[in-house]
Amino acid sequence: MDRIKIGVVTTSDRASQGIYEDISGKAIIDTMKAYLLNECDYEYRCIADVQELIESTLTDLAQTGCDLIVTTGGTGPAPRDVTTEATENVCHKLLPGFGEQMRAVSLRHVPTAILSRQTAGICQNSLIINLPGKPSAIRECLDAVFPAVPYCIDLIGGRYMEADESVISIFRPKQK
Amino acid sequence: MDRIKIGVVTTSDRASQGIYEDISGKAIIDTMKAYLLNECDYEYRCIADVQELIESTLTDLAQTGCDLIVTTGGTGPAPRDVTTEATENVCHKLLPGFGEQMRAVSLRHVPTAILSRQTAGICQNSLIINLPGKPSAIRECLDAVFPAVPYCIDLIGGRYMEADESVISIFRPKQK
Amino acid sequence: MDRIKIGVVTTSDRASQGIYEDISGKAIIDTMKAYLLNECDYEYRCIADVQELIESTLTDLAQTGCDLIVTTGGTGPAPRDVTTEATENVCHKLLPGFGEQMRAVSLRHVPTAILSRQTAGICQNSLIINLPGKPSAIRECLDAVFPAVPYCIDLIGGRYMEADESVISIFRPKQK
Repeated sequence: MDRIKIGVVTTSDRASQGIYEDISGKAIIDTMKAYLLNECDYEYRCIADVQELIESTLTDLAQTGCDLIVTTGGTGPAPRDVTTEATENVCHKLLPGFGEQMRAVSLRHVPTAILSRQTAGICQNSLIINLPGKPSAIRECLDAVFPAVPYCIDLIGGRYMEADESVISIFRPKQK
Repeated sequence: MDRIKIGVVTTSDRASQGIYEDISGKAIIDTMKAYLLNECDYEYRCIADVQELIESTLTDLAQTGCDLIVTTGGTGPAPRDVTTEATENVCHKLLPGFGEQMRAVSLRHVPTAILSRQTAGICQNSLIINLPGKPSAIRECLDAVFPAVPYCIDLIGGRYMEADESVISIFRPKQK
Repeated sequence: MDRIKIGVVTTSDRASQGIYEDISGKAIIDTMKAYLLNECDYEYRCIADVQELIESTLTDLAQTGCDLIVTTGGTGPAPRDVTTEATENVCHKLLPGFGEQMRAVSLRHVPTAILSRQTAGICQNSLIINLPGKPSAIRECLDAVFPAVPYCIDLIGGRYMEADESVISIFRPKQK
């Protein structure tokens, strides 16, 4: 079974200064451990909401061979929310269906889901997915899009993910 | 209670020449009066479908301190429909969830809802929301997105809106 | 009844080399024949997944007076999937509602629908719509968006389409 490499990037001025604990980044890692049967290496970064820093962190993680990079935070309308901008800048392909689906699922719980600008895209050979900053939304958003993630990573030349089907059902269409 | 400032921009070649009455702009103001408990100043503009004119009107309204700017008209595929282009040009952040949600709601009524390019975004410290030109769609679209508007305006540093909960339920997540 | 001109563009490295038969392009033509009462001329192209070639093909078809241009293939995340990029480059207006609606419909069948970047837009006086490459998705996606297509083509100055209402219900709002 392939050994997977996953980047986890928390963007938060306060968490990066140690003012509060980064629960969301840890929730992403816990969710990946629950989903995947593969052994995984995690590259974890907790950084300030500075666009250039987020961009260089994302491209560095892509460069080191992450199959998947998941961000949390910085997707709202506030002036310091620049994770979406950074993601759009470093990706050569954007996948708007991820944001649409995550907003649609979050909208079942809170009407403010429409304020999220979260997106996904391809940077080098990595799939980057933006998640909101709120810990409670991490699992909900990942459950909504992860079924399509292993096949996406196949298509961009990444390693072969295998999921624990008792936790999450992934889907790979038959090749034509 | 804060005194709110709201811009209302009708873009229509014919309404701006007085060929017909601008019902949609008035419907926006009536809806805001029904929603909000705050006292509001309205800045109303009815202008031609000229992109540069729409852009300068939007940035002027943002400059004068509007918390919210609502446009009507110019979001379709016709050559003179340029309100969306103007909005995208003057905003430093776009909020695609607004357009997605308004199209999803309009789709319950008419299949041509997919032709609308309406969006929303942040220009300076103002939230701009595009509505379609048809009077009947104004209330429907505002009902679909307004619950998230006061919190969005909080996040961009605007004044504190308070709604008549017997008319519209707004939502502010608890701060973390 | 107007005589309509429709472009059908299959982008596929393998189909364009004759390695396999282009079933999707033929499915588009068959669907249009079932939908439309008008007589139609079809301009069919089966080309490699090369962005410049796709762009020049699309602009040529628009130039020759196609009312509608439907593409199939090249909308996924793989490196050779560049039909969406080509479409975005040649269109002066994009219509994100088409992609949203096609992904929403495809999501009822497969979670990997969120990987599709399919969009639609206006190039000169032609409406371009991206469909996925899989033959089974052609009819499903066209059924989801075609009801809005004739009115869209009216708005951009194209010919007047008339549909077989026993096959597909199209919709034109009353003019204001």
